Amino acid sequence: MSLLVVGSVALDSVKTPFGEATEVLGGSATYFSIAASYFTEVRLVAVIGDDFPQQHIDLLKERGVHLGGLQKREGETFRWRGEYSHSLNEAKTLETRLNVFETFHPDLPPVYQDSDFVFLANIDPELQCNVLTQIKHPKCVCCDTMNFWISGKRKALQATLEQVDMVIINDGEARMVASDTNLVKAAQKILKWGPKRVIIKRGEYGVMMTDGATTFAAPAYPVENVFDPTGAGDSFAGGFMGYLAKTGQTDDATLRRAVIYGSVMASFNVEAFSVNGLRHLTQDAIHARYRQFQALMRF
Amino acid sequence: MSLLVVGSVALDSVKTPFGEATEVLGGSATYFSIAASYFTEVRLVAVIGDDFPQQHIDLLKERGVHLGGLQKREGETFRWRGEYSHSLNEAKTLETRLNVFETFHPDLPPVYQDSDFVFLANIDPELQCNVLTQIKHPKCVCCDTMNFWISGKRKALQATLEQVDMVIINDGEARMVASDTNLVKAAQKILKWGPKRVIIKRGEYGVMMTDGATTFAAPAYPVENVFDPTGAGDSFAGGFMGYLAKTGQTDDATLRRAVIYGSVMASFNVEAFSVNGLRHLTQDAIHARYRQFQALMRF
Repeated sequence: MSLLVVGSVALDSVKTPFGEATEVLGGSATYFSIAASYFTEVRLVAVIGDDFPQQHIDLLKERGVHLGGLQKREGETFRWRGEYSHSLNEAKTLETRLNVFETFHPDLPPVYQDSDFVFLANIDPELQCNVLTQIKHPKCVCCDTMNFWISGKRKALQATLEQVDMVIINDGEARMVASDTNLVKAAQKILKWGPKRVIIKRGEYGVMMTDGATTFAAPAYPVENVFDPTGAGDSFAGGFMGYLAKTGQTDDATLRRAVIYGSVMASFNVEAFSVNGLRHLTQDAIHARYRQFQALMRF
Repeated sequence: MSLLVVGSVALDSVKTPFGEATEVLGGSATYFSIAASYFTEVRLVAVIGDDFPQQHIDLLKERGVHLGGLQKREGETFRWRGEYSHSLNEAKTLETRLNVFETFHPDLPPVYQDSDFVFLANIDPELQCNVLTQIKHPKCVCCDTMNFWISGKRKALQATLEQVDMVIINDGEARMVASDTNLVKAAQKILKWGPKRVIIKRGEYGVMMTDGATTFAAPAYPVENVFDPTGAGDSFAGGFMGYLAKTGQTDDATLRRAVIYGSVMASFNVEAFSVNGLRHLTQDAIHARYRQFQALMRF
């Protein structure tokens, strides 16, 4: 089934203890699309400036990503500069230049309005709500968010949460949005606001998914060489939503497998800078790591 | 099969955001013994002062713990006072009074020297080594340790690690002892020093066990009301070693089930102060939570 993502396409400059990369392809919609492209065709809605390198557009095209909703505006592309300390747990943002992203309005091409599966990446919750007014009969809508919107636009964020089926969120942000340090209670509070399911990303510790009655928890794949965690959450979301869209199902068993496919894509992503860990994968490599997850969790 | 633990019996004073408990039963060998007592008979070696309340001894006896190695000395029992912040992740030690524990020497009663399964709780690694000289033909020896010994007695600790089959260690301490922030690499480094398996406790994030070739990872049980994390690691070790001793096996499948039983006991323990979460359990309650783990991890 069709899968739509609305988010950012960016040029990232990242420094980790293992190296650095300057002005490389990044952005939530980018990581999501490339990860999801191994499961289904992806419709991308985002904005770039007139300085955006053609090679990056070619890369997205090679992965079969539909770019009919990729707006090109006069000015510079969104840029993010960040640094990771040795623990690699959290990025320290050194600079954010929104540029053309500042006035981004997610106008959907008419053919995208019938999308079945929708992922609202981490953008202004007012824009997330606006996207939903343009979608006709979505089968499953999932959103992400971040601390910036939780503290700055809580009302708009709650309006988004009322309308989505699922929310994918970091553990720190789940605790923040629910004002509760206990993750089980935080998830229950978020569920009361609307979504049927909460998927909490815990970085190197894995993922917890709950609908209030049933909970699934998976560890992260034990990656020996983490080079750059940037985009891990969006790669997870891409694998997760990509698998759901591929199967067209949203029952509990399918959702659990989707969490593992999301974790597989995130594990590949952190093994290299930018999207280099994702761009040259094979179906065999993806399924081999899925089976490694089975071996990892079997008891 | 027989199970021996050498560690501490203490009187703890603990403050958490949810209440406080003063001079309550604590200590690594205590938590371990009570958790393990649901699986097998436990032989305890530790020291108490002449101020140690009889009711605590009665509690250990009720749980069938063998106290032939519990030395009573003139003076005060080991006391620990600590506090947890709202995140509950790490205890802040406010006071440690070793008292009779300062001159503790783990002399094993002769009947304990044929113990099959041995857990060396977090004590001076020189004492851990000394215990091993007293054991005749152990089937499986497992040790714990902490940052204090890692920085203060590294050589003695390495001598212990050379002789044990398995080490159970916190993630922070695994990173510290191996001087590597990546947990996979840290585990590999520890394996090179001798133990056949490393079991890394990640608190609310669960457990990872590896022998270098095969890895098992389990999330923690999502506990809604964590009252007091004190003793969670030792309760885990008690359930883990207790199950191994009960089955008499140490193959990979048994070890995986043992990790889950350990996680079950840790999850009960954190639901109340002191050993109150452990002392009144039933086999039904333990197996019910084991099945909840199956539901939690199944995909």
